[in-house]
Amino acid sequence: MLNPELYKARAEKIKLLILDVDGVLTGGQIILDNVANEYKSFNVRDGHGIKLAQRAGITVAIITGRESRVVEVRAAELGITEVYQHSLNKVDAYTDLVGKLGITGEEVAYVGDDIVDIPVMRKAGLSFAVADAEPYVRAAADMVTERGGGKGAVREVIDYILMASSRWDMVTGKYFV
Amino acid sequence: MLNPELYKARAEKIKLLILDVDGVLTGGQIILDNVANEYKSFNVRDGHGIKLAQRAGITVAIITGRESRVVEVRAAELGITEVYQHSLNKVDAYTDLVGKLGITGEEVAYVGDDIVDIPVMRKAGLSFAVADAEPYVRAAADMVTERGGGKGAVREVIDYILMASSRWDMVTGKYFV
Amino acid sequence: MLNPELYKARAEKIKLLILDVDGVLTGGQIILDNVANEYKSFNVRDGHGIKLAQRAGITVAIITGRESRVVEVRAAELGITEVYQHSLNKVDAYTDLVGKLGITGEEVAYVGDDIVDIPVMRKAGLSFAVADAEPYVRAAADMVTERGGGKGAVREVIDYILMASSRWDMVTGKYFV
Amino acid sequence: MLNPELYKARAEKIKLLILDVDGVLTGGQIILDNVANEYKSFNVRDGHGIKLAQRAGITVAIITGRESRVVEVRAAELGITEVYQHSLNKVDAYTDLVGKLGITGEEVAYVGDDIVDIPVMRKAGLSFAVADAEPYVRAAADMVTERGGGKGAVREVIDYILMASSRWDMVTGKYFV
Repeated sequence: MLNPELYKARAEKIKLLILDVDGVLTGGQIILDNVANEYKSFNVRDGHGIKLAQRAGITVAIITGRESRVVEVRAAELGITEVYQHSLNKVDAYTDLVGKLGITGEEVAYVGDDIVDIPVMRKAGLSFAVADAEPYVRAAADMVTERGGGKGAVREVIDYILMASSRWDMVTGKYFV
Repeated sequence: MLNPELYKARAEKIKLLILDVDGVLTGGQIILDNVANEYKSFNVRDGHGIKLAQRAGITVAIITGRESRVVEVRAAELGITEVYQHSLNKVDAYTDLVGKLGITGEEVAYVGDDIVDIPVMRKAGLSFAVADAEPYVRAAADMVTERGGGKGAVREVIDYILMASSRWDMVTGKYFV
Repeated sequence: MLNPELYKARAEKIKLLILDVDGVLTGGQIILDNVANEYKSFNVRDGHGIKLAQRAGITVAIITGRESRVVEVRAAELGITEVYQHSLNKVDAYTDLVGKLGITGEEVAYVGDDIVDIPVMRKAGLSFAVADAEPYVRAAADMVTERGGGKGAVREVIDYILMASSRWDMVTGKYFV
Repeated sequence: MLNPELYKARAEKIKLLILDVDGVLTGGQIILDNVANEYKSFNVRDGHGIKLAQRAGITVAIITGRESRVVEVRAAELGITEVYQHSLNKVDAYTDLVGKLGITGEEVAYVGDDIVDIPVMRKAGLSFAVADAEPYVRAAADMVTERGGGKGAVREVIDYILMASSRWDMVTGKYFV
């Protein structure tokens, strides 16, 4: 679990959470078959975390370098409408997104795992690398999750952001009554 | 292996075992493809454990928040007829189920992994969290399995419940002759 | 790696290697989808080990409690012709097989992971449990592999059996020239 | 991470990187279904590493003993044109490849995991075994990766080769500005 006291003031400000797909929402497996269908293995608790974040008023978005229909399938399940696929330069997608939502960089959290994520991580107010990210990505991140991509790293980030403020109690209080 | 002496008296009373699907009967992977087919990876030894529990007279039921055909496929293989899918409030399903079977809360064991499971875990006579459950779920459970979801956690729970009474010898004796 | 000196005399005699499927040739995952297609994840190095064993004159057979087309697909790839599926009592299949091949129990090695394997393990000349087998199965086995099912446990058993005699050099010598 | 100082002079010379598929680009899982479709799980960060290697002027090739359409699907995605499938004797494919490209053995790096890879590993200027390779393969390799096949071992090899020279800065500099 990420230390809830670290960067607490920054976490309280987050209004937009941007997620990479392969290696962050999944364990990085590119699963293909003989007829070029593509399969992805997402994490159920990440999914529930995304729903909690949305209920707490945080917009969740996806920026990914690959392109596949299966990402749209999962995004639709989770009510994620901001999806940038085939994003060759993630900073372009990031700039487009914050402009569209009218928010500032310090209101953005980003979770990545690879070298192409570093430029966006530097722009976001709070950046996370998953536990199994490449070493230079971990070095570039504000925080490194305990869990690997696809193993609940996104849930760990969301719980941390929500617990930094009263947003956690607001959306989960009913489960602890 | 769960300590067979702990909560032994409570384990002896169990007549109904309620299981969550994603993260309990599976490792939490939501596997999708480009055409929205859904795949789940169950555990063969969990499956055999469920057959042993049924032979010992325990009803096994499923309550899950998601909905997919593949859960019906696996439930049918295992002879599980009590299946509640798309269960937005698990306590409702729980209440319906115990009423229908005419049993009391202390005759129910429940295995969960996420925050939505906590309210049901508090109602069940004996509650289990899988090893990789969220920390607040582990804290809310009577016992935490050594194995993660999809890695034999359900079998671990079943062996524990059966070993707490003569039911273990009754259903497995023939293998040890 | 299994200790090549342990049970060496018994290993030298093995002419038939019987393998369970789910949990031994795979990691125990029962993978299904919405239309009841079944998927299995075998291990490439187990496969190569099976080819080595066959070249060394050892018959490799499969006895499994489940039944699925995918087992036939993999068996055909590996040239395994002795395949017993839907085997509710594995001792029956074992008895049929040794009779058919005209060999004795001490010429048979068996690899299992679950309680239903124990009666056959007791009949075989040399029995193995995979690393992640249930505790009472490990206790019933002559040897326990270091690797789990689907993670090369079968290859570990085969290398051990071949290394116990000149059969290893016979079939692998060309790779070490 | 592989020690960037070890074999540095040899790494600087590499112009061709030859990869095995099953157990190197994947975790060794042979995934099949009831209708003999084949599935492979590649690694996204290996894929990005292959693109980096290509941008640095290194040819990436595949030599595999199996044959499946899915390998062509992934190779096409990554722009790998030198693909030898159903290669029963890997030295033959290796000899053909270096002849065709007009390079010498010391300009070749090879990554393998199984006994059939050993003869090629001995010919290549720099040979790597993945972390979970068979013990005699690890013993035959110049270097052993920290990561297993399919878990980023190929990326680890590529980063190491590029970091041994100015090629790393050339292709990744833009991400660290």
